[in-house]
Amino acid sequence: MVRVPVVRDILSANERVAQENRRLLESRRICAVNLMASPGAGKTSLILRTAGSLSGRLRCGVIEGDVASRVDADRVAAAGIPVVQINTGGACHLEAQMVGAALEELPLDQIDLLFIENIGNLICPVEFGLGEQARVLVSSIPEGDDKPHKYPAAFAAVDAVVLNKIDLAPYVSFDREAFHRLVRGMNAEAPLFPVSCATGEGLEAWAEWLVDLVARVREGA
Amino acid sequence: MVRVPVVRDILSANERVAQENRRLLESRRICAVNLMASPGAGKTSLILRTAGSLSGRLRCGVIEGDVASRVDADRVAAAGIPVVQINTGGACHLEAQMVGAALEELPLDQIDLLFIENIGNLICPVEFGLGEQARVLVSSIPEGDDKPHKYPAAFAAVDAVVLNKIDLAPYVSFDREAFHRLVRGMNAEAPLFPVSCATGEGLEAWAEWLVDLVARVREGA
Repeated sequence: MVRVPVVRDILSANERVAQENRRLLESRRICAVNLMASPGAGKTSLILRTAGSLSGRLRCGVIEGDVASRVDADRVAAAGIPVVQINTGGACHLEAQMVGAALEELPLDQIDLLFIENIGNLICPVEFGLGEQARVLVSSIPEGDDKPHKYPAAFAAVDAVVLNKIDLAPYVSFDREAFHRLVRGMNAEAPLFPVSCATGEGLEAWAEWLVDLVARVREGA
Repeated sequence: MVRVPVVRDILSANERVAQENRRLLESRRICAVNLMASPGAGKTSLILRTAGSLSGRLRCGVIEGDVASRVDADRVAAAGIPVVQINTGGACHLEAQMVGAALEELPLDQIDLLFIENIGNLICPVEFGLGEQARVLVSSIPEGDDKPHKYPAAFAAVDAVVLNKIDLAPYVSFDREAFHRLVRGMNAEAPLFPVSCATGEGLEAWAEWLVDLVARVREGA
């Protein structure tokens, strides 16, 4: 009987800060994308590849969320992209207040599209809005085609699904039609982008979707 | 100020039930292994392959933990292995009380080695003992060699690490020495078993470790 109200307080406090983040981003004409995935699905590789594809069209920035370490932020910084690392020190998801603090450290006037790389976790991040304009789930071929079945809330909650590592399809058992059908069962609208960050295949369609997204967010702002 | 005592209460209540589970398992001479991993690392495939390898030596049983669905339990049952599915309905980890309820449904007199497949999540399950005699982390090649760096608590908390999908090593960038070094940095003792559930490579050493584990648990009981 004690737990429920406490959790509700945390969530609504998070939502208040998420709204503040959203207002700040809109005032700076920045579109933020909350990237969610299992550990090792390739979120950081996707960010790096996408920022390269968008070079000259959109200026990217990154907030890296990890339980520990700064290896991802170092990779992003080495590519010359503005980045802030959040270490949650054990917590299993990003919260809006962490993102708010990170936004203060970023050169917002140099960013059109902000990737927020959430903690590698298909469950807990779904509950916590960060102020983002879109949510994207990154799944990957080696994880198996049954993931939408097993993590339905994550697939239902997003505006797009990226299916990464399609270059590994010849070497593993993965039924792409079954995966697509399961995604549609959870989410009638979200476009599905099969990509390989190793070969670059499929990245153009995904990059075009982001360009459209940024345009739509700016029209709305 | 409200949150901390509530969380403590949950954890200590969990620990009490975990002790009850442990006593029940010991009284039945069953060794339980808590398998933790990212989504799609291959926990169910490892269980199926291992149960096959141990056939005639140890009788296996399985508790399948998932947020939703019973696809894993169906796979295990199709192999003729006693299994109970737990659906957490959104919760990100198994708790001892869930396992206690599942134990009541299993034919304990037909089981020597019980695999408890935790929710696919490298963070939250670590906090919750289930009454198991050993904890094993299943990592996999496509997830990348930096996982011990990013999820240190999971790698520190286990008695063995299985590195699955080594058949995919030729197709991805994975530095096995770096992975091994990072595991050792977090965990000085846990043996590391590189395996492929697709080809069967490496499964014998892992199966032998389990046979020894069961013998040690029985000597101690």
